[in-house]
Amino acid sequence: MSESIGRFEMLLSRGEAHLLGTSEVGLSLTTPASRPEVSVNSSFQRDANNLLEDGNGLECHSPPLCLTESKVTFLSLGAFSPSNIGHSKLPCTQLSFGLQPARTFCENSCTSVAINGEPPMSKFMNLARKFNCFYFNGDLQRCRPFLVCGKQVGVMQAKVVEAACRYPDVFQMDSSGMISMHPSLKTYEERSARINHVLTQWKEERLFVTLKGWRNECYEVRTGFADPPLLKMDRSAACLFGVRQYGVEINGYTRHPQLGMSLWLQRRALTKPTWPGKWDNMVAGGLSVGHSVLDTALKEAEEEASIPAYLLANLRSAGSVSFYFESERGLFPNTEFVYDLELPADFVPHNSDGEVDIFELVPVSQVMERIFTPEYKTTSCPTTLDFLIRHGFINSDNEPRLPELVELLHIPLHYLYSQSSSQSPISPN
Amino acid sequence: MSESIGRFEMLLSRGEAHLLGTSEVGLSLTTPASRPEVSVNSSFQRDANNLLEDGNGLECHSPPLCLTESKVTFLSLGAFSPSNIGHSKLPCTQLSFGLQPARTFCENSCTSVAINGEPPMSKFMNLARKFNCFYFNGDLQRCRPFLVCGKQVGVMQAKVVEAACRYPDVFQMDSSGMISMHPSLKTYEERSARINHVLTQWKEERLFVTLKGWRNECYEVRTGFADPPLLKMDRSAACLFGVRQYGVEINGYTRHPQLGMSLWLQRRALTKPTWPGKWDNMVAGGLSVGHSVLDTALKEAEEEASIPAYLLANLRSAGSVSFYFESERGLFPNTEFVYDLELPADFVPHNSDGEVDIFELVPVSQVMERIFTPEYKTTSCPTTLDFLIRHGFINSDNEPRLPELVELLHIPLHYLYSQSSSQSPISPN
Repeated sequence: MSESIGRFEMLLSRGEAHLLGTSEVGLSLTTPASRPEVSVNSSFQRDANNLLEDGNGLECHSPPLCLTESKVTFLSLGAFSPSNIGHSKLPCTQLSFGLQPARTFCENSCTSVAINGEPPMSKFMNLARKFNCFYFNGDLQRCRPFLVCGKQVGVMQAKVVEAACRYPDVFQMDSSGMISMHPSLKTYEERSARINHVLTQWKEERLFVTLKGWRNECYEVRTGFADPPLLKMDRSAACLFGVRQYGVEINGYTRHPQLGMSLWLQRRALTKPTWPGKWDNMVAGGLSVGHSVLDTALKEAEEEASIPAYLLANLRSAGSVSFYFESERGLFPNTEFVYDLELPADFVPHNSDGEVDIFELVPVSQVMERIFTPEYKTTSCPTTLDFLIRHGFINSDNEPRLPELVELLHIPLHYLYSQSSSQSPISPN
Repeated sequence: MSESIGRFEMLLSRGEAHLLGTSEVGLSLTTPASRPEVSVNSSFQRDANNLLEDGNGLECHSPPLCLTESKVTFLSLGAFSPSNIGHSKLPCTQLSFGLQPARTFCENSCTSVAINGEPPMSKFMNLARKFNCFYFNGDLQRCRPFLVCGKQVGVMQAKVVEAACRYPDVFQMDSSGMISMHPSLKTYEERSARINHVLTQWKEERLFVTLKGWRNECYEVRTGFADPPLLKMDRSAACLFGVRQYGVEINGYTRHPQLGMSLWLQRRALTKPTWPGKWDNMVAGGLSVGHSVLDTALKEAEEEASIPAYLLANLRSAGSVSFYFESERGLFPNTEFVYDLELPADFVPHNSDGEVDIFELVPVSQVMERIFTPEYKTTSCPTTLDFLIRHGFINSDNEPRLPELVELLHIPLHYLYSQSSSQSPISPN
């Protein structure tokens, strides 16, 4: 039963309000108490009674339902049990939902933006442009390709190029302006050691703000995720070279009896070097040297949220998101491996490594508001949006630009760097 | 500036910001913002010839692709901002793209292929290159942008351009080689009627194989999915103009007590005009005029698989996939809205409109084999792969190139056509 989750708005928006009927709407929604939609049903029941007078059916769900006068506007953020509704033989009501477009929920904190007379961008699209700010607005003019072993692995901003030119035995600039690790550095170990030496000096000189957050944790540098590593560097330095960074994020969710579908969010500790105090997905971690993707997910789930092994057995791989962000620290062509983890309603994560301030169970409808606030870690939004899309909360009914939004959660990072030959949309053989 | 939209990822992906930096090329890029492609491409072509002598390559993009013999640059389906590039002071670097175009996958779609000592491509990556064959290997050199109301909505292959030039009151070619619908055709109705007239003639002349499959079902032509339609044309003709096509696909699945997780596949009727007799996802349909996304999903589910409404209550929106395929019929920049539908183990779909030969419930493990065979409809693979990834069957453990594969299921179709200004990754603000 827990799997037979449906989505009301679909039927409604299509005109299949017959499932909800009119006077018998309430009846069709008297679901078993075991279902989280019970609370929905109660509000539905109440609202239905108001609407029954003019014979309209309506949508409702957990959480907020938007009703207007005799017409029903809805926004389905919840689910319901089709086995209960499905057997209804109720007559179809006319579909005068006359939706005040279901974007009503979009009209608060972030404003829509109209560009050149095009349809306004939704808040989600605005957000996608925000976490892809380098993809859209990056100042490439002042960047140089960064190559290792003849393959481009990143780009360097002018200030980094300038600093790198002080180390001609480590970095070599050719006549075209491309920066390479010096070809005399032939092994992974040599390259890693030399770059670490440079970075340590830069850190001492306080040359780059990102190095204040030195992690003593290294990222591998590769041409592609499946390629052999060419060198490693401290995690805090990766954004100086625009090298692709990989991480793992876990969406922890619960079908809560009162709150409905809800996500566990963490507020990052104020002591964290990056995004202190911001809301984040339940578990997140960078993919550092020596750990596989799944290893990292399990390790972080234990460290950050104290999730016991028997619950982690539910961990499910759900793909990845890719985006290209820029901040004062540098360039972030990021790929996050995404996992979903359904948790029992009575489980509460707690932090054991000091990296999390608090955890909060947030109904999906509230997540869809909080995600737009400055209190939400921008680079965590893609994973959250991906969850909301995969689970149907953001769909073609409430987001007219759904396919474009989905593309912006998966921009072609693996094809950005031209010298990574085998990965180019035109094969370089 | 609003029209001089750039596409930095393309530049990045080739390092073209630098490639463009020769004085010749740089000059050529300081073009009028209103028509970046015009002088850019023509001068690129000219400059390319000069540059080839010393082994330099060049930038180019849609339309004209600049190909040369041994050295090739390149394929960009995007555009870039001349105002940005034009100011580049960087020298031109060598372009060692030296492409043997990535057609290796065509020779054997199932085995892994090693390229230049890179890790072998997985079977899934081979498949992703197959259904993205135009994205990787498209012969843009012979294509022209197709514009309506000043916005690019597609590209036309040479043979279509040739045929279109016979109708100067319908299609207008400017000095840059771009084809526009004649500006005297001011309304949706006028444009639709005139293009229908042309297409009907082409059909009678048997000019294009795709028109044999005339559907009497129209697709809308828009700059973006959420934009107002500019005209409509018969579905079979969309691929002649390379206009984006949208469809809906439903993954019907069952957690079967004996077979485990299984997908319902349909074998298409032998009478279908396209992909007859091939295996396909349970339900699929194009998004034709007058039907919303959800409407289409529900309509097709009923027509193709006779799925009753009470089961459709389970239908769940799960996002979309985007890919760019080419066949003898034409160009297919396709976006499929994806739905998942869990079905009871004892439910068996049956066809009611004659479009399906048989349905078969196939365990996921077998789906993951069948998908590689020539018996599987190539353009249905993205939706199937997306399902397998979202549900964890393809993951970072069994697919080292998972993030790259995921990106290839969501290529930036909405940013391919440079004249659709608001949709470009370079912000037009």
